[in-house]
Amino acid sequence: MSNANSSPIDRRTFLQDSTALAAALTLPPHVWTAPPDLAPIYAQIERRHDETVQRLQEWIHQPSIAAENRGVEEGCELTMRLLRDAGFTQVTKLPSSGQPGIFATLDAGARRTLGLYFMYDVKQVDPAEWSSPPWDAALVDKSGLGKVVMGRGAVNQKGPEAAFLAALHAIRGAGRKLPVNLVLVAEGEEEIGSPHFPEIVRRPEVLAALRPTVGIFMPTAAQGRDGEVTITCGAKGVIEVELVSTGARWGRGPRADIHSSNKARVDSPAWHLVQALASLVSPDGNDPAIDGFADKARPLSPEERAMIATAARRLNENAAKQSLGVEHWVHDVSWTEALELLMSRPTVNIEGLVGGYTGPGGKTILPHRAVAKLDLRLVPDMTAAEALAALQAHLVKRGFGDIEVNMTGGYDPTSTPRDAMVIRAQEAVYGRAGIDPIFLPRNAGSWPGYVFTGDPLRLAAGHFGLGHGSGAHAPDEYYVIESTNPKLQGIDGAVRSYVDYLHEVARAR
Amino acid sequence: MSNANSSPIDRRTFLQDSTALAAALTLPPHVWTAPPDLAPIYAQIERRHDETVQRLQEWIHQPSIAAENRGVEEGCELTMRLLRDAGFTQVTKLPSSGQPGIFATLDAGARRTLGLYFMYDVKQVDPAEWSSPPWDAALVDKSGLGKVVMGRGAVNQKGPEAAFLAALHAIRGAGRKLPVNLVLVAEGEEEIGSPHFPEIVRRPEVLAALRPTVGIFMPTAAQGRDGEVTITCGAKGVIEVELVSTGARWGRGPRADIHSSNKARVDSPAWHLVQALASLVSPDGNDPAIDGFADKARPLSPEERAMIATAARRLNENAAKQSLGVEHWVHDVSWTEALELLMSRPTVNIEGLVGGYTGPGGKTILPHRAVAKLDLRLVPDMTAAEALAALQAHLVKRGFGDIEVNMTGGYDPTSTPRDAMVIRAQEAVYGRAGIDPIFLPRNAGSWPGYVFTGDPLRLAAGHFGLGHGSGAHAPDEYYVIESTNPKLQGIDGAVRSYVDYLHEVARAR
Repeated sequence: MSNANSSPIDRRTFLQDSTALAAALTLPPHVWTAPPDLAPIYAQIERRHDETVQRLQEWIHQPSIAAENRGVEEGCELTMRLLRDAGFTQVTKLPSSGQPGIFATLDAGARRTLGLYFMYDVKQVDPAEWSSPPWDAALVDKSGLGKVVMGRGAVNQKGPEAAFLAALHAIRGAGRKLPVNLVLVAEGEEEIGSPHFPEIVRRPEVLAALRPTVGIFMPTAAQGRDGEVTITCGAKGVIEVELVSTGARWGRGPRADIHSSNKARVDSPAWHLVQALASLVSPDGNDPAIDGFADKARPLSPEERAMIATAARRLNENAAKQSLGVEHWVHDVSWTEALELLMSRPTVNIEGLVGGYTGPGGKTILPHRAVAKLDLRLVPDMTAAEALAALQAHLVKRGFGDIEVNMTGGYDPTSTPRDAMVIRAQEAVYGRAGIDPIFLPRNAGSWPGYVFTGDPLRLAAGHFGLGHGSGAHAPDEYYVIESTNPKLQGIDGAVRSYVDYLHEVARAR
Repeated sequence: MSNANSSPIDRRTFLQDSTALAAALTLPPHVWTAPPDLAPIYAQIERRHDETVQRLQEWIHQPSIAAENRGVEEGCELTMRLLRDAGFTQVTKLPSSGQPGIFATLDAGARRTLGLYFMYDVKQVDPAEWSSPPWDAALVDKSGLGKVVMGRGAVNQKGPEAAFLAALHAIRGAGRKLPVNLVLVAEGEEEIGSPHFPEIVRRPEVLAALRPTVGIFMPTAAQGRDGEVTITCGAKGVIEVELVSTGARWGRGPRADIHSSNKARVDSPAWHLVQALASLVSPDGNDPAIDGFADKARPLSPEERAMIATAARRLNENAAKQSLGVEHWVHDVSWTEALELLMSRPTVNIEGLVGGYTGPGGKTILPHRAVAKLDLRLVPDMTAAEALAALQAHLVKRGFGDIEVNMTGGYDPTSTPRDAMVIRAQEAVYGRAGIDPIFLPRNAGSWPGYVFTGDPLRLAAGHFGLGHGSGAHAPDEYYVIESTNPKLQGIDGAVRSYVDYLHEVARAR
């Protein structure tokens, strides 16, 4: 769940929840000695520490916000330069129907090729909410953590991505060749739900380059505040939809807001929406009741159940409840069952309701329009397209066919086998850093990894990287540069983890 | 419906609807000669025209907005001075738990005493929306109407109230005695739902003064744009409530917004609200389904049905539908049935829905709180207190007892007999002005008249006055000063209607 990454579709609040999930875990103090052959590279990492931090700061200085179409072109150009500087020999800007993507390759003449997924955009900011200006990338002392860089994009995703690029600089600085070839795809619309990322990945030259890779990873700050790491073997899919009920489209009710006394003789689009919504879930609001929606939901396998049972023993239920501010799980289930539901249950959630008068007190109107914002989470073998079709058919069948269903974003579920080589390699590197990762069958959040794990590529995909940060999508986003907690890696430790990972992937069986 | 007056609880949008309702009525051109004995008073009205307009302009210049606590004290003092200037001999400021009320009496030594209800507050403004600044009270030419005064409070309610005061000035100016004694109560919180008006009226000295009155009226601009007048024999009651569903109060769901993926294991206060709402009405959203809510609703009497049948023939269904922007009435009923429902049907209406993320696109949260704003309209013999209790009991019985029910305003229904003397006197005056008013059993909007018509006073109460204005609660509110439409009275005609009305009340049987 530490890789519940980036996008309106899986906010960092979730990351913070998962941190607290494992808060009660005790890890052995970190013991990490360089494998003998990597010592010269490790030395380069230390020597280049300041350069690495400055590169990250330069990157943060450049806003690149797709939602506001702000600095995206400049952010793309800067990212392309940083990739070239780090040794990518072919770096191409790929136009899309939205913001451009980047396709980059580094042929080291190695046996294996590893895929990489980068994002170069960041979330919007409200500078007034920040204790240090979001584009300043100031180095700040943070109690209990050490020195951090504070700024928009610090952890999501420039810090981890900069740490990965620093690994390439260190390897080259030590006079070594990269142990694997690299194929990188980047997008500038991750924070608006990656609407054109499939376009970018499905270009013939990109598919051709990705097809032979051993898998894909995105650099991330995988450590929770106490150093713990969770690895998920995939992620739920999601569709985000707006249900819009209007008098005009319905052909009943008013075309503009009218005085509420008219309810006695005029139909209400707001009630129409409420009754439609009520039909989508069980009376307690917990179980999807959309016809056919979950027909293809694959139940947990015995292996997945066993994985969850192990995780349940290691994760702290009370810490999770406290972090979420809840006293009971749905249906008052146990901790293990709650985790099973989280991993395996399709959901229908209300993100927001808005219609008519929303200010203080009341206003006697009969609104002509009401909107519900929903997200529906999907598990294999459900698909975003089928979920949308099921929702629409359900509404039509019950007399709510006039309610507009606007899909604002969506991903298919993502699955990567527990024993995929790129996952085993992660586990090995974490293990050498003294960390025994918790495995979970699936992230309950979502990311655009389906573009890699689904057809036609069917690659393993996940997130990887030591290091810690927080505040993605929130004020005071940070990434740890120098850690005062021995269980937590600063940026140099993160860079080392990428050096190790590249070598591990190169030699893994 | 022309007296759908003033308050968050019955917006002027309703007034505008009712204007269009009767738009197709044709009235005979106005023929109005002064009864011989009133000619000297009529002459005074004309002579004092400029003074009357200036008094109204001075009144509009003084904002008095309870919702913003702006100028209320000054507005109260100014109103008291205007009452004294018009001849009220006893004018007292009455403190309340909110803004002060005014109690004023004028003992003319007459046989009968008439009650008056004034408001001295006005609705908020957004000056940017006005074509002439709202406190300027500028005289503006308005196409098809003539010269109007434009400003906040022009029609709601300072224009009609100033016209009434001008009637007192004219009678005194002609050397006449008032034909009736007057008892006036005024409030400064009408636009926030008259929360403390019962306190003011129920003071022993006020009750003692009101008890012997023949009834109560509020000056109003009762004419629609084509001169037509509708008289309603009472008004529906109303309660406005907020239903607030929160995880904290429920004891389930989160205490703050959390990542939406948690829906799989965490209860949703938003779904809890939706399911509670769905239980309040029939599946089509049209019929209240709150247990016991409408048990005391009195069906229409044969006389009331006859009154509506007559009104239905005179009112234009297509104009009403067009004005409301609707193509069908609920249940596809006929025009007569639609009017019957409007007058007689208790309602449960959604004014607004707000919870979680309400901005553009989506945001993947599970909100900890969701709110529905409702208004419930009541007919005799329902009461506001019983409606609230029924709603609360209904929710408790269905497992929604944790949902907070905040009542933000409410009035009992108001009823005045069709043949009450103060109503018959209205009809007589309108008739002499060439107007055959449409009678309706009830206004579907609401006003605080229940304070007069209910216990302990049980007085007849209504609105009265020739003249026309519009835009109450909206920008460019106006009141006609000099009418170019012979069917429509300007301010002098309004003043004459009050002179006539006082004499009619004095001599009516």
